[in-house]
Amino acid sequence: MNVLISEVGPRDGLQSIAPIMSTDAKKAWIAEMAAAGITEIEVGSFVPPKLLPQLADTAEIVRYATTLPGLTVAALVPNARGAADALAAGAHKITLPLSCSEAHSLANLRKTHAQVLDDARRIAEMIRALPEGRRPHFEGSLSTAFGCTLEGDVPQAKVVALAESLMAAGCDEVGLADTTGYADPASVRAMIAALWGAVGREALTGIHLHNTRGLGLANVLAAYDAGLTTFDSSLGGLGGCPFAPGASGNIVTEDLVFMFEAMGVRTGIDLDRLFAVREHVAAALGDEPLYGFAPLAGLPLGFVPATPKATTREGAFA
Amino acid sequence: MNVLISEVGPRDGLQSIAPIMSTDAKKAWIAEMAAAGITEIEVGSFVPPKLLPQLADTAEIVRYATTLPGLTVAALVPNARGAADALAAGAHKITLPLSCSEAHSLANLRKTHAQVLDDARRIAEMIRALPEGRRPHFEGSLSTAFGCTLEGDVPQAKVVALAESLMAAGCDEVGLADTTGYADPASVRAMIAALWGAVGREALTGIHLHNTRGLGLANVLAAYDAGLTTFDSSLGGLGGCPFAPGASGNIVTEDLVFMFEAMGVRTGIDLDRLFAVREHVAAALGDEPLYGFAPLAGLPLGFVPATPKATTREGAFA
Repeated sequence: MNVLISEVGPRDGLQSIAPIMSTDAKKAWIAEMAAAGITEIEVGSFVPPKLLPQLADTAEIVRYATTLPGLTVAALVPNARGAADALAAGAHKITLPLSCSEAHSLANLRKTHAQVLDDARRIAEMIRALPEGRRPHFEGSLSTAFGCTLEGDVPQAKVVALAESLMAAGCDEVGLADTTGYADPASVRAMIAALWGAVGREALTGIHLHNTRGLGLANVLAAYDAGLTTFDSSLGGLGGCPFAPGASGNIVTEDLVFMFEAMGVRTGIDLDRLFAVREHVAAALGDEPLYGFAPLAGLPLGFVPATPKATTREGAFA
Repeated sequence: MNVLISEVGPRDGLQSIAPIMSTDAKKAWIAEMAAAGITEIEVGSFVPPKLLPQLADTAEIVRYATTLPGLTVAALVPNARGAADALAAGAHKITLPLSCSEAHSLANLRKTHAQVLDDARRIAEMIRALPEGRRPHFEGSLSTAFGCTLEGDVPQAKVVALAESLMAAGCDEVGLADTTGYADPASVRAMIAALWGAVGREALTGIHLHNTRGLGLANVLAAYDAGLTTFDSSLGGLGGCPFAPGASGNIVTEDLVFMFEAMGVRTGIDLDRLFAVREHVAAALGDEPLYGFAPLAGLPLGFVPATPKATTREGAFA
């Protein structure tokens, strides 16, 4: 594989919609995605069930997903308490979001930057206390890194300083997140260069981009050209706070995979199987709108993907 | 200006939809676009009115548009007959499409490559017969350059050979057109390099991309990074054969301009005024769906465009 597509639909997608998907349907979705070649899925978030009843079964989902061969099971944790649950469930990767806009951090997590960094230190300690083979990868996610709907501009220097603080607190890596859809190809490139200069290339390999203003894939291209290799996206563009009909929030996994495969960049993912998962999830979600262009238009005539067709495996959906 | 946005909505958009927009509404649209800072508009196509009644008033529209200060008035011509009409109306730029897939050329224009090239030679002669100050810019458009829905792959060598033939026939320039939405950032870059090697940089400055599979703006970024400076797009993504609801054909002018302005690349266009034109055209078109993300999400808080705000001019819409 040349790039890693990290599917966030079961977490970011489901937490954004009202209907609660059954635990069995979630398991089927995750298994089918893994069978299509997705090797990393953020399967849930360890938040209090009262806040997000859609994700109340996250521990069970994590335990199930870790039984799927070759799959990196990621989970979001809002704080040290959530991290403890994620470690107990056996998540391979945990992500702690830190909103670079402190106004946004206070509004969303009700925490200052100092409080989130304190959580990061406690989580790093908990991880170090585990036996070596059971320590998950710990990522600090720099959300609202490209601007904030409350504060507007977020200075690059602040993002860089917070990245350094997260690494000092014990994160294995930081991730860039354009929570608000404010990024553009130039700001993506500039931010990557600034962060690499501060924390090193190994400490930043991935980015979470939104398609709020239509620039999602252009921003991906800019990040890929710059050298990032991990890209978050969501099946059908589910989640990421869509603004209006037709405007998806998250980048659509199907279009993202199509772009890379068309470019000759291997994702390891079978597009036909991915399109089939989309149909299954659409059926499971009922009236919830899905986004994306490639699945509607279909693949070009004579299309040759970069990833060779794998031996057909049985799908996990009934 | 750092880039030229060439609006094709009044031609490519209107020819793709059933309702016939009144001549007055077209004039208002074009005038309002020009007032927003658009400096080139393809205002119509000189095809027989029986084939495209939507564009039957093209000669009148061209004559009107040439009265707007600072606007380059472009028109499509399917053949030498149409070119004669375009010259008589006073178009500043005429574009003759040549489909790189001969199967597509036969199906759409009922002409072989040799016949289209013969048309190109006749048009070039007609232009040379005009007094020097009245000669329009003559572009040969390489349509289906990135693949064809009938033939599939279109070899790069064929596109290059046709570009050389068009230039030899007397075109001032060739344009790249991804008629089918088959292009990807890698094929865009490779095609530009191949064409520049054959016909020179001055002979290829623009590209007409579609968003059929969601890669429109990523392909624009690839072409811009490679060095192209003229980009076709359509207000609201009108036209370009959309496949399904949510899937636009043409690139959306609003999103394209937003991307460049956010990147610090000057388009000369006022985004707020452009969004206002969208509302007026939406009202004029009734139920016809418009596409685009930036107009729905709105500009980021504190957004600073690359193009400074111009002195307010009165809009042409009532």
